[in-house]
Amino acid sequence: MIKVGIVGGTGYTGVELLRLLARHPQVQLQAITSRKEAGMPVADMYPSLRGHVDLAFVTPDDARLTECNVVFFATPHGVAMAQARELVNAGVKVIDLAADFRLKDTAVFEQWYGMPHSCPDLLEEAVYGLPELNREAIKKARIIGNPGCYPTSVQLGLAPLLKHKLVEPTHLIANCASGVSGAGRKAEVHTLLAEAADNFKAYGVKGHRHGPEINQQLRAIAGDSSVNCLFVPHLLPIIRGIHSTLYGRLTAEGQAADLQAVFEAHYKGERFVDVLPAGSAPETRSVRASNTVRIAVHKPEPDTVMVLVVEDNLTKGASGQAVQCMNLMFGLDEQMGLDLVPVLP
Amino acid sequence: MIKVGIVGGTGYTGVELLRLLARHPQVQLQAITSRKEAGMPVADMYPSLRGHVDLAFVTPDDARLTECNVVFFATPHGVAMAQARELVNAGVKVIDLAADFRLKDTAVFEQWYGMPHSCPDLLEEAVYGLPELNREAIKKARIIGNPGCYPTSVQLGLAPLLKHKLVEPTHLIANCASGVSGAGRKAEVHTLLAEAADNFKAYGVKGHRHGPEINQQLRAIAGDSSVNCLFVPHLLPIIRGIHSTLYGRLTAEGQAADLQAVFEAHYKGERFVDVLPAGSAPETRSVRASNTVRIAVHKPEPDTVMVLVVEDNLTKGASGQAVQCMNLMFGLDEQMGLDLVPVLP
Amino acid sequence: MIKVGIVGGTGYTGVELLRLLARHPQVQLQAITSRKEAGMPVADMYPSLRGHVDLAFVTPDDARLTECNVVFFATPHGVAMAQARELVNAGVKVIDLAADFRLKDTAVFEQWYGMPHSCPDLLEEAVYGLPELNREAIKKARIIGNPGCYPTSVQLGLAPLLKHKLVEPTHLIANCASGVSGAGRKAEVHTLLAEAADNFKAYGVKGHRHGPEINQQLRAIAGDSSVNCLFVPHLLPIIRGIHSTLYGRLTAEGQAADLQAVFEAHYKGERFVDVLPAGSAPETRSVRASNTVRIAVHKPEPDTVMVLVVEDNLTKGASGQAVQCMNLMFGLDEQMGLDLVPVLP
Amino acid sequence: MIKVGIVGGTGYTGVELLRLLARHPQVQLQAITSRKEAGMPVADMYPSLRGHVDLAFVTPDDARLTECNVVFFATPHGVAMAQARELVNAGVKVIDLAADFRLKDTAVFEQWYGMPHSCPDLLEEAVYGLPELNREAIKKARIIGNPGCYPTSVQLGLAPLLKHKLVEPTHLIANCASGVSGAGRKAEVHTLLAEAADNFKAYGVKGHRHGPEINQQLRAIAGDSSVNCLFVPHLLPIIRGIHSTLYGRLTAEGQAADLQAVFEAHYKGERFVDVLPAGSAPETRSVRASNTVRIAVHKPEPDTVMVLVVEDNLTKGASGQAVQCMNLMFGLDEQMGLDLVPVLP
Repeated sequence: MIKVGIVGGTGYTGVELLRLLARHPQVQLQAITSRKEAGMPVADMYPSLRGHVDLAFVTPDDARLTECNVVFFATPHGVAMAQARELVNAGVKVIDLAADFRLKDTAVFEQWYGMPHSCPDLLEEAVYGLPELNREAIKKARIIGNPGCYPTSVQLGLAPLLKHKLVEPTHLIANCASGVSGAGRKAEVHTLLAEAADNFKAYGVKGHRHGPEINQQLRAIAGDSSVNCLFVPHLLPIIRGIHSTLYGRLTAEGQAADLQAVFEAHYKGERFVDVLPAGSAPETRSVRASNTVRIAVHKPEPDTVMVLVVEDNLTKGASGQAVQCMNLMFGLDEQMGLDLVPVLP
Repeated sequence: MIKVGIVGGTGYTGVELLRLLARHPQVQLQAITSRKEAGMPVADMYPSLRGHVDLAFVTPDDARLTECNVVFFATPHGVAMAQARELVNAGVKVIDLAADFRLKDTAVFEQWYGMPHSCPDLLEEAVYGLPELNREAIKKARIIGNPGCYPTSVQLGLAPLLKHKLVEPTHLIANCASGVSGAGRKAEVHTLLAEAADNFKAYGVKGHRHGPEINQQLRAIAGDSSVNCLFVPHLLPIIRGIHSTLYGRLTAEGQAADLQAVFEAHYKGERFVDVLPAGSAPETRSVRASNTVRIAVHKPEPDTVMVLVVEDNLTKGASGQAVQCMNLMFGLDEQMGLDLVPVLP
Repeated sequence: MIKVGIVGGTGYTGVELLRLLARHPQVQLQAITSRKEAGMPVADMYPSLRGHVDLAFVTPDDARLTECNVVFFATPHGVAMAQARELVNAGVKVIDLAADFRLKDTAVFEQWYGMPHSCPDLLEEAVYGLPELNREAIKKARIIGNPGCYPTSVQLGLAPLLKHKLVEPTHLIANCASGVSGAGRKAEVHTLLAEAADNFKAYGVKGHRHGPEINQQLRAIAGDSSVNCLFVPHLLPIIRGIHSTLYGRLTAEGQAADLQAVFEAHYKGERFVDVLPAGSAPETRSVRASNTVRIAVHKPEPDTVMVLVVEDNLTKGASGQAVQCMNLMFGLDEQMGLDLVPVLP
Repeated sequence: MIKVGIVGGTGYTGVELLRLLARHPQVQLQAITSRKEAGMPVADMYPSLRGHVDLAFVTPDDARLTECNVVFFATPHGVAMAQARELVNAGVKVIDLAADFRLKDTAVFEQWYGMPHSCPDLLEEAVYGLPELNREAIKKARIIGNPGCYPTSVQLGLAPLLKHKLVEPTHLIANCASGVSGAGRKAEVHTLLAEAADNFKAYGVKGHRHGPEINQQLRAIAGDSSVNCLFVPHLLPIIRGIHSTLYGRLTAEGQAADLQAVFEAHYKGERFVDVLPAGSAPETRSVRASNTVRIAVHKPEPDTVMVLVVEDNLTKGASGQAVQCMNLMFGLDEQMGLDLVPVLP
């Protein structure tokens, strides 16, 4: 059994981790920390966990995290990098669901997250936790920077095109939309039901933190620093789900290619990526509460490709992906605890 | 033209007041106060008002409210009672959309709102602003305690029965449900879309502030201090709308009565109360964004009456009712500025 | 392995059955019938099942249902009673999710469902499939009438009171609200998103099919034919979830009882009934996509009891309950395949 | 007073027309036809109109439409073109909210709407009813083809760029999303609340009827037949509202231009087009139930323009625009009956 600690289990990625880990056959939950809620049974905050999780929140001091095998950080940005060194030195693996170990360039990190990076050496060894891209590195990693929710869908949608140089690298567009759980469980006005329901808008139009992450990763995938993707997020009046509509202009090679075959070949054997039949349009509910991504590729004009991608932002876009990484890091079946049938309707 | 001031126009009752008053032919908006947002154009906070409201928020000090004819308080509880005396002394009429002038018993007020009442004398003269109940008193009032949203629907639904002693007074049940805008535009977790959407629950099950208001008023309507109504609110995943399902046991006289005829007679001539044909079930959207209440009365068992009531909690349940009171206080057509066709779908 | 057939798998109870059975360790899905969709892979209709269910719909003739161990009917009312005899005679157990085997009085059935009952003898032996009530009978049953969604919540909420004569039997009120999936996957105007969203209403106010089912069952539970419950359903703008607010007047014994203790004792050991701590108000999302019912009991007045119950109408209110019955019928752990953590948020 | 007839008032554009016309000071509603609902009071179908519209539906034969001054067709495609000639010959103006008079090329019409055009001569004289584009022609028109909901937002968003040759004409992208009321009040499965709520998807990915309309119009605006816009609609789980995110590559001239100033100058004096301050992101609710379009223009990359547009699909996207056309055709103030403050929240 893997002894698991969770730092900061009061938010949505925390409760989603608990939903998944509570049924994971190889996991023993050791401790869930919350300085603010210490002493409160987790199931008092999340009645959905009554009967499934018996732990109470503990303070970080009482959590004895160095005795765990792996610690997940479901915390605000900046927490994981402050605690990672002690854990890693104690032989504990670290999976950070925030952004501390995603951006390789510390100047970019500081620009977008408003704080200096406190452990650039650990950042350098950290592995970007997208298994479909970095599976072998993840298996050996001590520290995982779990991908952002939007970047997961954009990378999986564009990777087959960039890998094979089928799309012009410089004017990619990622027109994305996310449910409000992506904003977290924070008391804020703009995500109140009375503000966000029966409504739709773009946001972050002057720049969003996931923009540099997307470009860093797409450049790595393509091996081409000229890759540039315009990322435009929109706020959906739904709880869970991300939908990405991706546009690019096809190269001559791309125009000649059988894009459907390219995608199917690229994701052959991937258990969490489902390439839909030609002509499909995936819907977010078809992956609700599961770790699956569904992708459809279209050629609406002879020189234009459009890729449609859906994921559950809390599962494959956050906690499910983190568990997938954990499985790889501990030599387990990648699908263990993640064999979830989406909830529909 | 009536010179109107609004104290605290940043919440939902404030923006609803502005929506209504911006098109009121006899109103001139003088000032909208917000200490926190002073200087910001109102339409920057509420883009829906662009082109309709040109004012900026001002500090209370700059608002020169004593030069208004009427001041609406769309503020937290406790603000109106602190400022009412100065305004009344200056000849300004006061309409409080909060609870300061609703509960006649200051001990009950203190118990439920956690603060002593600072002007019991003004409270005594204040009129409870439900025109269908208190029309003549409202016309002469200097201070209006605008009714709570739930109490409006419960009173209008039960008044014909209580007036005519058709229902047993002691075990009334008001099973009510409200959209989340009733909780106001406050940064709180429990009304986030990700918390409140696709969800339903009772709340305030140990007692809710509108309970004593409902009982005070039902007792006054019936002229019977034994009236007791169990009030149970529920939170609906909708923006606007209150639905009340009211239950009572019929007296012998009630069992013999033609309840449909009683209701139709009782509300004959009322422009904002629509008694639906026998057998109807009103839906909240049928009054969305309007000042209308729709009521259906049923006798599901020979000795049981069930009344269904819908209103828009922000209009007839708050700001529309306040404008209705203002019209009465200034001798205008009661419907002026309120001749709104509900928005459906 | 239990060989399972499903008749009529295209509706919401069908896809929910498939979601549950696809992961059930002792089930082998043999056939899913749909005359209209024969030949179409099930996962084409429900992409959520891609990778989990490989079957295609077949015609009833091709389904060879008599070779199954159990057949679920997720069909309109009237289908199961037409096919049950052949299956039962072949030794196949039958679980009907429609109403054919719920109402013991064929006259009542005919009145509410508009068709004569075609096999009164089978109806007589059929067992009402509420395990918390009828566990032993279910184990031995050949035919199960799976309870209606509303009746499940009302019975579980009132049973402890009625069993112990703590509540007056004659004026019970069940003020209930259901998400729209309860209306099924049928092309109808009143459940369109543009009709039902941002809206709330009572319906079936002249009588609803679940009314006689509720009263039949409450009378059986109490052993008292005078039991009468007024059932009033409301339509919630949510997908899944039923919330029942139940009211009754306490008998002298009930007024003296510790109701919290009564409920906890009554449901002790039940894996799918969670009695919440005193003072709680359950929310529908706390059981979303799970087979759990959560109950809170309140005494808002000395002589009044209020019980709050939530369930997922498609799981414990339909398909989950059917699987629970199947587990009992085949001697399996009652929880097998149903150990679901609710999806929250 | 203008005598108005409505053919087919049972759908959402019909009830929206009634909402607007019921309060229009110069309109007298003469007749609303529905063969199927003849005899039923309009307010029985739409209780929101109780007290505002007293008419009952009549058969087309009883409607005496030739005695009207103007007839609106809120019907399925194909109805208006069958009846327009008789009305026009009788001197009645015709405003068709369906597609019969939008597409100038009858072959394109036949391809997308599956029926031949029955009156090409009337089609030729018909005016495309987008006042911001065709104001003078509308004033003199006998027949109006009221624009599609999506095309209205796309044209208004791209017109300033195309008029001034600021954008490359050939690879425009219109990534659009609409509330479900755009699909009409039809009994269909895919727009059920249980299907469409808490969900998001692209649709019409192989081509949508509004695609050719958009390209016809953008070419006319630009005076350039090479204009080509990829139109991708998505289905939003909201009732009303369209949001268009438009992308184009700037020409050299466009890169040098002050786009904000271009848009402000272009729409100066337009009462229903609101160009937001630089840096804005409009939200659909900011125009809910109003005839206003709000637009924000962005230059996210030096050579890329992004335009964000919101409208209410039933008002400016359909019935409000039709009333705006009527006002122009009859020499009334363009804003008469349309001075609506959006409903927020």
